[in-house]
Amino acid sequence: MSAPSADFSSWSQARLAEVEQLLEQWVPAAAPAGLGAAMRYAVLDGGKRLRPLLVLATAEAVGGVLPPLGSAAWRAACALELIHAYSLVHDDLPCMDNDVLRRGKPTLHVQFGEAPALLAGDALQALAFEVLLPEDQSVEPALAARLCRQLARAAGWDGMAGGQAIDLAGVGQQLDQASLEDMHRRKTGALLLASVEMGGAAAGASAAQLAAMARYGRALGLAFQVVDDILDVTADSATLGKTAGKDAAADKPTFVSLLGLAAAQAYADDLLAQAHQALDQVGLRQAAYLHAIADWVVRRSH
Amino acid sequence: MSAPSADFSSWSQARLAEVEQLLEQWVPAAAPAGLGAAMRYAVLDGGKRLRPLLVLATAEAVGGVLPPLGSAAWRAACALELIHAYSLVHDDLPCMDNDVLRRGKPTLHVQFGEAPALLAGDALQALAFEVLLPEDQSVEPALAARLCRQLARAAGWDGMAGGQAIDLAGVGQQLDQASLEDMHRRKTGALLLASVEMGGAAAGASAAQLAAMARYGRALGLAFQVVDDILDVTADSATLGKTAGKDAAADKPTFVSLLGLAAAQAYADDLLAQAHQALDQVGLRQAAYLHAIADWVVRRSH
Repeated sequence: MSAPSADFSSWSQARLAEVEQLLEQWVPAAAPAGLGAAMRYAVLDGGKRLRPLLVLATAEAVGGVLPPLGSAAWRAACALELIHAYSLVHDDLPCMDNDVLRRGKPTLHVQFGEAPALLAGDALQALAFEVLLPEDQSVEPALAARLCRQLARAAGWDGMAGGQAIDLAGVGQQLDQASLEDMHRRKTGALLLASVEMGGAAAGASAAQLAAMARYGRALGLAFQVVDDILDVTADSATLGKTAGKDAAADKPTFVSLLGLAAAQAYADDLLAQAHQALDQVGLRQAAYLHAIADWVVRRSH
Repeated sequence: MSAPSADFSSWSQARLAEVEQLLEQWVPAAAPAGLGAAMRYAVLDGGKRLRPLLVLATAEAVGGVLPPLGSAAWRAACALELIHAYSLVHDDLPCMDNDVLRRGKPTLHVQFGEAPALLAGDALQALAFEVLLPEDQSVEPALAARLCRQLARAAGWDGMAGGQAIDLAGVGQQLDQASLEDMHRRKTGALLLASVEMGGAAAGASAAQLAAMARYGRALGLAFQVVDDILDVTADSATLGKTAGKDAAADKPTFVSLLGLAAAQAYADDLLAQAHQALDQVGLRQAAYLHAIADWVVRRSH
């Protein structure tokens, strides 16, 4: 493990390679009847890995050093990515968004069929909890239980799944900004917030640190969605690796349709400032990577 | 809590009412945008509740008394039922079995639509883990972690989801008996085995007791499927509460198609004897209900 450095690019590239290595190890090729191949297609070799990077940057910010490879923070990082990957697979199904392109590749149901995609998503959700609960109890049981509780809540009815239900019910409807934010707070915000909460828990964060991280996580989660809505109208599919313009085409409410492009961009900048402020409000040993992740979320081109 | 009694009928009716009460409390009406209604439709007021009864009968067999209402064994009972309910919802979807009748009612996607059914299933899986992890830590963390690990494994790639993948890949194929049993060992057997394992864990069972319960659970799980295959050809839809004859119509391999009806019945009787023997091999304080559940699984008419 190298000493902390403020070079975010090299830090994140090293972490991404390590996360890929762990996912490669933990997403089972041995799952029967093609299930393993479908699960691995959905997870490996793709994605921004924003949630794992948030977990690891938080754990390093709190602890001052990167936790040992494979320890609780790494398990939390991969568990969150597995939940995220399952949600994308189910979200892309014909009965949901009916999307054919994801991470620059055909979506899972296009490649493997609908039923295998459904099952692979289901199995990835269960696997996320398995990853947090190694048989050898190398994650201390009280911490494992806490991480599982945070993950289940973020993924479930009051988190991601609830946000997707609101999203589904909202197509073609007028939503005000508060309702749109409530939907995104659940749909994407819950997992992003859980990323900093679980990273903090794994590193033994204090209550004050957890509160500051939660403020950071909420601002970042909302900024992420505002920027997603901006990119949906300003970027092309090849740059995004997924279908551009689909929210507008589906008549879904977005921050751009609600606020206009310029005001949406200004809102993203304001949320970025809020995220930075939250980091500065509490003593963290190494906040540079968290600052850089927030910058990247708002300045990204895809 | 009444003292143990060998009257299985009154015992099971009392337990079913209590399980219903807990599920009523734990499956959230408050889930947004119709998600709560869909989740509750899938879970409440229906089903044999075999898995909860197995958990509670095991906990009582090991401990000698029924655990306090709402304690770890009850949470395990409800968590398993939630996983079972989610699997039925997803299994009934058009891309899977495309079934319209379940527990005597229209299936969830017929009643609510495909996308809400998909989301409700996803949310029920997350809820199962939430139920095992109450915020007040009334389930001791090491036990909660152990129960979550057992549940995740039983539900996931090497358990139920893996069995469903094998089932899906096996339509129209010739399977020998060993392959058919491997499929069912995962698809339905894993959750039934987890029921006795989790009930035993919640009651502090010894290693010898757990080993005997596992033998009982494996025999019972296989017997359950053999009898399901028999009922699929001998019972009508009204009695079953689901579509009869669908496995034969779908050209799925079954114990009846492989062995014939008489030999399948003889095999179920043999597995029943194995289940009873496992119970007699180890000191249990109260095995009458476990004996009775095995009898019921093999002698049932639906």
